[in-house]
Amino acid sequence: MDGKPTLAVVGATGDVGSVMLQILSQHADVWGEIRLVDAPRADGGGGTGGDALSVRGVPTEVVALREAAFDGVDVALFLVPDKVSVQWAPVAAAKGVVVIDRSAAFRLDPDVPLVVPEVNPHAVRARPRSIVASPGCATLAMIVAVGALHAEFGVCELVVSSYQAASATGRDGVGALREQLSLVAGTELGTRPGDVRRAVGDTTGPFPAPLALNVVPWAGALEADGWSSEELAIREETRKVLGLPRLPVVATCVQVPVITAHSMSVHARFEREVTVERAHEILATSPGVVLFDNPGAADFPTPADVVGTDPTWVGRVRRSPDDPRALQLFVCGDNLRKGAALNAAQIAEAVAVELTKP
Amino acid sequence: MDGKPTLAVVGATGDVGSVMLQILSQHADVWGEIRLVDAPRADGGGGTGGDALSVRGVPTEVVALREAAFDGVDVALFLVPDKVSVQWAPVAAAKGVVVIDRSAAFRLDPDVPLVVPEVNPHAVRARPRSIVASPGCATLAMIVAVGALHAEFGVCELVVSSYQAASATGRDGVGALREQLSLVAGTELGTRPGDVRRAVGDTTGPFPAPLALNVVPWAGALEADGWSSEELAIREETRKVLGLPRLPVVATCVQVPVITAHSMSVHARFEREVTVERAHEILATSPGVVLFDNPGAADFPTPADVVGTDPTWVGRVRRSPDDPRALQLFVCGDNLRKGAALNAAQIAEAVAVELTKP
Repeated sequence: MDGKPTLAVVGATGDVGSVMLQILSQHADVWGEIRLVDAPRADGGGGTGGDALSVRGVPTEVVALREAAFDGVDVALFLVPDKVSVQWAPVAAAKGVVVIDRSAAFRLDPDVPLVVPEVNPHAVRARPRSIVASPGCATLAMIVAVGALHAEFGVCELVVSSYQAASATGRDGVGALREQLSLVAGTELGTRPGDVRRAVGDTTGPFPAPLALNVVPWAGALEADGWSSEELAIREETRKVLGLPRLPVVATCVQVPVITAHSMSVHARFEREVTVERAHEILATSPGVVLFDNPGAADFPTPADVVGTDPTWVGRVRRSPDDPRALQLFVCGDNLRKGAALNAAQIAEAVAVELTKP
Repeated sequence: MDGKPTLAVVGATGDVGSVMLQILSQHADVWGEIRLVDAPRADGGGGTGGDALSVRGVPTEVVALREAAFDGVDVALFLVPDKVSVQWAPVAAAKGVVVIDRSAAFRLDPDVPLVVPEVNPHAVRARPRSIVASPGCATLAMIVAVGALHAEFGVCELVVSSYQAASATGRDGVGALREQLSLVAGTELGTRPGDVRRAVGDTTGPFPAPLALNVVPWAGALEADGWSSEELAIREETRKVLGLPRLPVVATCVQVPVITAHSMSVHARFEREVTVERAHEILATSPGVVLFDNPGAADFPTPADVVGTDPTWVGRVRRSPDDPRALQLFVCGDNLRKGAALNAAQIAEAVAVELTKP
C-alpha cells in the first residue's frame, strides 16, 4: 500500500475509547488518517456522531457508525459491546478492513486469532474472517508474565485467583463503588452481619453484593457446574493465546473495592524445573513486564501504584517448597490499558506494520 | 474434680478478649469462676488490672497478670501477644493450669498440640507442656471446611490465596483503614499511578501500602525465599492440624480493605475422585460449616455478610474440569471469632469437659 494506513476507532466515545485516544496520541505514529466512529449506546442512544474529540492533538469529528464509515479504512479498532461487534465487525471485514475486536464476541471463534503481541505475535497474520480478537481484561492481567515464563519453562498447569477492579464493569461499577464508599466512610460499619449491605442499600450497581468494605467472589454470568463466565473465559482465552488447547487452567474470580487495575494470584506449574533467580531474569527482560519483587523493601505491585501504567507488574515470585517445577506470582495490570485499549492498539500497530511492508 | 472448673482469661481487655467475653456469655456454662486477667500492652502499660468488665452478665474485676492470678485456676485462655505468652504460659502451666494459647508462640512446638475442635479434637488430650495452641486466623478461615472434605476424600495438595481483613492487624489496622477510607471517599482517586498513596500519606498504619482502594499482597514478616511469615504459617499450621506433615501447601496472603472476616480462594486436590454433589453433602452436614452456594441467586459468602458469625461459610464449590480429584472453594470466616476467640473457647470447653469427667 501507499503511505500510512487509515485507522477507524469504533466506540471512540466510550471508556475504553477515551483511553485508546490517549494511547494513539502517545504511540509512534503508524497511522495516516485516524477516523473516530461513535457506537450505539446500550440504551439505544448514541451512534449518531457529531461530537469532536482530540486525537494526536487534533480535534477530530466523531462520525456515525454506518457502512460508509469504513470507506477507505484499512484497520478498525472495535471498542464496543459484544452485540455491536457481532453486527458491525463482519460489515467492516467485508469491505476489506482488518477488524481488531476487543469484545468477547469472537475471542473463541476458531477462525479468529486471539492475540497478545508479547506472547503470540505470529497469530495475527492468519485471519480468515479479517477479524483479530483481543482477550478479556482478566486474562490480560497475567498472560504476558505467564507467557514469558512459559517460553522458557513450558507451563503445564495454572491455578489463578483474581482481585478485580470495579472499572471492568464500566462507569456504572465505578459510580456504584464510589457511592458505596461515601456511605461507609466515617462510620463504624463492617463489624456486624449485613451492616454494610443495609447501609449500601440499593447502590450495589452492577455488583451482586456490596463492594465497599467487602469482596465479591463473582464476575460475569452463571455457566454450567457453578463456574462464572469470567472464570471460563480466563481458562479458554489462556489456552488459545498460549496455543495449549488442553492446558489445565482453573480460575476463581473475585471483585474487590479497587477502581482500576486487576491483580491475580498465580500458581503455575511447568514441565521443567524453575528457580526464582531464572524467573526473575526472564521477567526483568521480557517486553511488557516490570519485575517489582523485593518484599523486604515493600516492593510488590499493588493496584494503587500500577493504575495508569502500561506493563504487567510482577512480584512475590516464590517457588513451591514441595515442587521445584511450580511458581507463585502476584501480578497487577491496568484493566483499561493493557487489559483493554493498549492490547488492541498493539495488535492494530502490528497489522499496520504488516500492511505497509513493501 | 469437684464442681465446674475455674477459667482465667488472660488479655481480657484486648480486641480478642472482648469477643471472648461475648462468647463466654453466650455459650453453655461449663465454667465455675471466670477470672479476668489484664495483659501488659505493647507500650509497656496495662497489665495492672483494676477495670471491671461484664461476663455472663456479671461485672467482673480485672486482676493484674502475676503468678498469683493463676491460684486455683484449671484452664487459662491466653489472648495476648507472643512474647507475653512466651513469658507467662509456662508460669501458669507450672502451676497445673491447662493453658490455651492463641498466640503464635507455641503453634509449631512439637510438644504443644495445635487444635481445631471440628478437625482434630483428639489432639487436645496429649499436652506434655500443659499448653494447647490455637492456629492463626488465616488457617482458621479455611481449615474447618478443608478438614471436613479431607475426612472423606483425603487431601493431597492445597493452593490458597487469601483476602484478609484489617482487624487481623488489631485496632491500629482498623483505625488506619477507616482513616484512609475517609480520605478517598467522595474523590476521583484510584485512576492515576500513586494518587491513592499520595492522598493516604502517612496513614498507612500497620500496612506496607495503602489499603483503601487497594489490595496489598503481603501479611507478616519476611521469611526465607520471599515467603511471608503468614504464608508459611498457613502451610505449617495446616499440616499440623491435619496430621499430614508432608502435605504440599502453598499460600499467597493478600490484605484487602475489609474490616473483619477473612476470605480464602482454595484449590484442593484429593486422593480420591470428588463430586460437587458429595462435597455439598459433606459441607452441609459438617459442624461449624455453612454451605452457601447458589450463585444463580447470588448466594456465595462475602465478608460483609458473615462478619460477626461463628461458622466457616463455604461457596463457589467447583470441580476442576481437568482433574476429577480437585475442587475449588471460596470460604469466609470471622477472623476475630472462629479465627481467634471462638476456636480458643472451643478448645477450653473441650478441656473443661475432660477435666470434669468422673
